[in-house]
Amino acid sequence: MQSFELLSQKFALNFEKPHFPTEPSSLYQPNEYFLRLGGKRIRPVLCLMGNELFDDVNPDAWHVANAIELFHNFTLIHDDIMDKAPLRRGKETVHAKFGENTALLAGDVMLVAAYEYLNKISTSYIRSVINLFNQTAKEVCEGQQLDMDFEKKENVSLEDYLHMIELKTSVLLAASLKLGAILGGASQRNQSLLYEFGKKLGIAFQIQDDYLDAFGDPKKFGKEPGGDIKANKKTFLLIQTLETADPSQKKELKKLMAGNGSDKTEKIIQLFHDCKVNEWALQLKNKYLDEALVHLEDVAVISKRKEPLQELAQFLIQREH
Amino acid sequence: MQSFELLSQKFALNFEKPHFPTEPSSLYQPNEYFLRLGGKRIRPVLCLMGNELFDDVNPDAWHVANAIELFHNFTLIHDDIMDKAPLRRGKETVHAKFGENTALLAGDVMLVAAYEYLNKISTSYIRSVINLFNQTAKEVCEGQQLDMDFEKKENVSLEDYLHMIELKTSVLLAASLKLGAILGGASQRNQSLLYEFGKKLGIAFQIQDDYLDAFGDPKKFGKEPGGDIKANKKTFLLIQTLETADPSQKKELKKLMAGNGSDKTEKIIQLFHDCKVNEWALQLKNKYLDEALVHLEDVAVISKRKEPLQELAQFLIQREH
Repeated sequence: MQSFELLSQKFALNFEKPHFPTEPSSLYQPNEYFLRLGGKRIRPVLCLMGNELFDDVNPDAWHVANAIELFHNFTLIHDDIMDKAPLRRGKETVHAKFGENTALLAGDVMLVAAYEYLNKISTSYIRSVINLFNQTAKEVCEGQQLDMDFEKKENVSLEDYLHMIELKTSVLLAASLKLGAILGGASQRNQSLLYEFGKKLGIAFQIQDDYLDAFGDPKKFGKEPGGDIKANKKTFLLIQTLETADPSQKKELKKLMAGNGSDKTEKIIQLFHDCKVNEWALQLKNKYLDEALVHLEDVAVISKRKEPLQELAQFLIQREH
Repeated sequence: MQSFELLSQKFALNFEKPHFPTEPSSLYQPNEYFLRLGGKRIRPVLCLMGNELFDDVNPDAWHVANAIELFHNFTLIHDDIMDKAPLRRGKETVHAKFGENTALLAGDVMLVAAYEYLNKISTSYIRSVINLFNQTAKEVCEGQQLDMDFEKKENVSLEDYLHMIELKTSVLLAASLKLGAILGGASQRNQSLLYEFGKKLGIAFQIQDDYLDAFGDPKKFGKEPGGDIKANKKTFLLIQTLETADPSQKKELKKLMAGNGSDKTEKIIQLFHDCKVNEWALQLKNKYLDEALVHLEDVAVISKRKEPLQELAQFLIQREH
């Protein structure tokens, strides 16, 4: 059994090679540029780990891991266009560097390249793998659309936000694990348990993401915190504050959100503290982590094989960047 | 053997059903809206015809035909964003009606839906079908990128333009036929001949497209001609005129292109006449049609089975709208 770190290193090495033809370079160079910006490569490594939970990592799992990482990068390129984001990992986004039209097409062709990797695997698994991949891809698009819809809505309930996060973030983590499990010959029950583990973990992961933006240590966080707050982005923290604040706090919060004062972030963080959503978020995160781990516990393989996934889960939701 | 018209009617009826879930409607309603705008459905029907050339039309050919039409509509939604086109078939484009971000996502999910149909077919053909589909999808993206690159270039050679058209238009027609042939159990040789038929036909088709914009009968054309001319769009006609005009004609053409006078279209069409590119275009179109038909002739099935494709080829390149 290999740790997340070890498999990450192996995946990074394997993924370094070019994934596109050289010509037309006006289309493919932006793709290679974006892939070279790096990333934690969590999703493809989850696929490898889901695979190794049941058997030695097989070559098909590597193909599917590549497909997953290309799919994830396709969503990032298109999300960056939609968010008009100038930077990703401290470097120019594809549309900022090469123009929106090229970024749109580069994303499209990145998605097709993902299917090229899927089409390399053994015929015996191809239908179920592509089936889950398609379902997940649609759900991720649905999640992104809901996220955009929520931006325009005054009130978003915690339930609606959770549903959106499940689609936008969780299902891809869950599917990555399950795709590995399918290729490892796992039973339907084990596949489902691992999928549920991934879904719960994904929500805990997002809570940590939202938490770090407000309460992260700037030195460790790697970027200026408060980005979500400045942009009035709906997060676990903001939604819960709006739900639990008393009328005067709520009024102040709405006023702060309507403005763009230099003390906006600081004052909203103070309100988060006042409403104790920092504590609430940590509890909620741990609740989802616990639920995730129970599903992993139920997977019918010896405990030893589960250790790397348990360690990864702890790491992902305690990370400080 | 069924005619193009009959298969078109059958396809239209079959394709009418919803292709997406109802929720979230903010994502899927734009997709259904766009599919209801109609279209000639040439590509999916080519798939059915390519299939029937070798055998009775089988259910897998219907799935792949749906995938092809969804793929084509995905490219149209994204192309309309890139071209900032307000109208398609006289109705609002997806981005004009629902916003650019939603159009981007609606296109993405349309592409995924195409793969959902591909994943329904018999396992024995799935790898070769997805392989050709992926290759074609990449080429169509490459063609679109080259088309955008050419917009910024002063000089585009006829050779470069042909290469771009082959990628942007021809390969999808060719692949549609070949996908049908694969599912009909055609030999590799017959598959390739049909692919070449489609490629040549695609170029003839594009020449007719370019021709109609300048010389079409407005009453039959269905839209105001001269759109390409007003936009200085590189077409067979413009490129050939730039290549064959004498220095004074060339100077006048450049001057007309730089301006936007009310007589721009009329005067450029006059230059097309002066340089005889109308006659040249018709000859070139017939040359490609003849080459296409020779490939079809070589397909090793009885002549009777080829008749609907021969009739369609004649129709496509003589159409007046």
